[in-house]
Amino acid sequence: MDTGKGNGSDQYASDLSSIKEAHERIKSVIHNTPVFSSDTLNVMAGRRLLFKCECFQKGGASNAVLSLDEEQAAKGVVTHSSGNHAAALSLAAQMRGIPAYIVVPSNAPKCKVKNVIRYGGEVIWCEPTFESRQVTADKVQQDTGAVLIHPYNDSRIISGQGTISLELLEQFPEIDTLIVPISGGGLISGVALAAKSINPSIRVLAAEPVGANDAALSKEKGRVVTLPQTNTIADGLRAFLGDLTWPIVRDLVDAVITVDDKEIVEAMKLCYEILKVAVEPSGAIGLAAVLSDSFQQNPLWADCKHVAIIVSGGNIDLDVLWEALSKR
Amino acid sequence: MDTGKGNGSDQYASDLSSIKEAHERIKSVIHNTPVFSSDTLNVMAGRRLLFKCECFQKGGASNAVLSLDEEQAAKGVVTHSSGNHAAALSLAAQMRGIPAYIVVPSNAPKCKVKNVIRYGGEVIWCEPTFESRQVTADKVQQDTGAVLIHPYNDSRIISGQGTISLELLEQFPEIDTLIVPISGGGLISGVALAAKSINPSIRVLAAEPVGANDAALSKEKGRVVTLPQTNTIADGLRAFLGDLTWPIVRDLVDAVITVDDKEIVEAMKLCYEILKVAVEPSGAIGLAAVLSDSFQQNPLWADCKHVAIIVSGGNIDLDVLWEALSKR
Repeated sequence: MDTGKGNGSDQYASDLSSIKEAHERIKSVIHNTPVFSSDTLNVMAGRRLLFKCECFQKGGASNAVLSLDEEQAAKGVVTHSSGNHAAALSLAAQMRGIPAYIVVPSNAPKCKVKNVIRYGGEVIWCEPTFESRQVTADKVQQDTGAVLIHPYNDSRIISGQGTISLELLEQFPEIDTLIVPISGGGLISGVALAAKSINPSIRVLAAEPVGANDAALSKEKGRVVTLPQTNTIADGLRAFLGDLTWPIVRDLVDAVITVDDKEIVEAMKLCYEILKVAVEPSGAIGLAAVLSDSFQQNPLWADCKHVAIIVSGGNIDLDVLWEALSKR
Repeated sequence: MDTGKGNGSDQYASDLSSIKEAHERIKSVIHNTPVFSSDTLNVMAGRRLLFKCECFQKGGASNAVLSLDEEQAAKGVVTHSSGNHAAALSLAAQMRGIPAYIVVPSNAPKCKVKNVIRYGGEVIWCEPTFESRQVTADKVQQDTGAVLIHPYNDSRIISGQGTISLELLEQFPEIDTLIVPISGGGLISGVALAAKSINPSIRVLAAEPVGANDAALSKEKGRVVTLPQTNTIADGLRAFLGDLTWPIVRDLVDAVITVDDKEIVEAMKLCYEILKVAVEPSGAIGLAAVLSDSFQQNPLWADCKHVAIIVSGGNIDLDVLWEALSKR
């Protein structure tokens, strides 16, 4: 499997120079997303919070797609992730004028499929099992010659995500802490690599649902832990670490803060009501983490004064969201 | 009643120079709100749409509060509007360190009261009638000497709103059309005054719910029409024009586009799902208007190519919103 490896240093799947290259490559097509703040939330958190609104980012897979040479690109790209990556990959492919084949399990939420189609992706249905997704994606690759772009275990994706730190630290060099949602680890790997290269003393904290706490367990055990099942409203945070993201998470993420679904929902409401940002539960988890007792009462974090929170995720389906909320 | 009149020209309650003064006065305390766009929505609308996200604005009453001299300001401000103005006035007063007395009817939605308290406003309850609001506000004025800041029928508010056009047209001088929600007319009056002074050929269209179509009727009859009752999910758009806003709406608003609640809800969903912006129904009405048949099929608007839409409103209460949606 081509995971785009080789772009980065030998130590990790990416590095600061790959991330800077990615930034040059994509800066004309991505949004430099706004950073929001709220005195009300600062008071609640007892420190200054800076919300980097990546939920407004539509160019999330641009680096991967624009990294392909002409010959590779002509055959298109394929992924078997649904979710935000599928939509972002479809859009990036559409902008380059190449096909995007998106393998989608038959039980996928309507809104995810809608977003893929909205951005010109070609939906290829499969059975709702990991094996079927893999087999179907392999077949698409064989039939079309398309390049597989994994949602997180891919150097090009990791480097693209790292550009978030370049934007943030250029605008707010005083940031001393970054709080980042963790799922498969692509986002936090890029963010941590860039941020710690620029400022080695910066803290990078992962935010994870207790019902999908594989990253917390992995850090504890010193090896990748997967879970037999996950149980959280934050459906974007159910993936497990990959072989490219784990070494970065192991070495560069200072701690994992786990929060329960109640904390996530409360934070989501604050995002809507105070920031006016329509996040999915996964996107609100950083705010949940900074407001949680486990963060607030840990003396290790007492001197985190300028805290940037990455607000990710954008697959909002009002109907589905409410159904999930009303079951709580 | 002091409506702040006298700041503007003789013809209208405000003018370009008052609006520029307002901009100087408030620019250090307001957000220059971001302008979002979406290829998907451009395709749906058949033209380029620019969404000016005033829903992120927390400084909506700054001009009114900062216009007061020290002696006036010391006694505080009072209003009998609930809604966004009440929250904005509370915040602006808090930033200046003066009291804000907010007269709130006993049946007001929880979230509105919550926002007022969040921003340091003092809630004064009254009966849920127009008379009681008026009498209670008068009494507060007499008891405290606070200055009444009307939510829309006030030159200082109108001038403050006009600064939106300054920001927009500086960034996008190619804009040929502005679509603005209309309720009491404060927002659209400021926006229209500034925009038409800068570019007389620009079109300013009001967006209004059919269930609260008093502005459409007023334009039709050539006089202020009020309605015995209103019926719309867009609860921020139920007010009627005032004596300061009516002449501006009469002369400078090219047309009123009315949309039904179904169109508003559809547009609101697009705001959440595509723009990722958490708007209340009132805030989505501009998008509803540009997508409506009455706009799309009117040859008058065929050459509206660069359309700015003001996305206003920020009183989101997820629970209340869903209740309203589920009743439809």
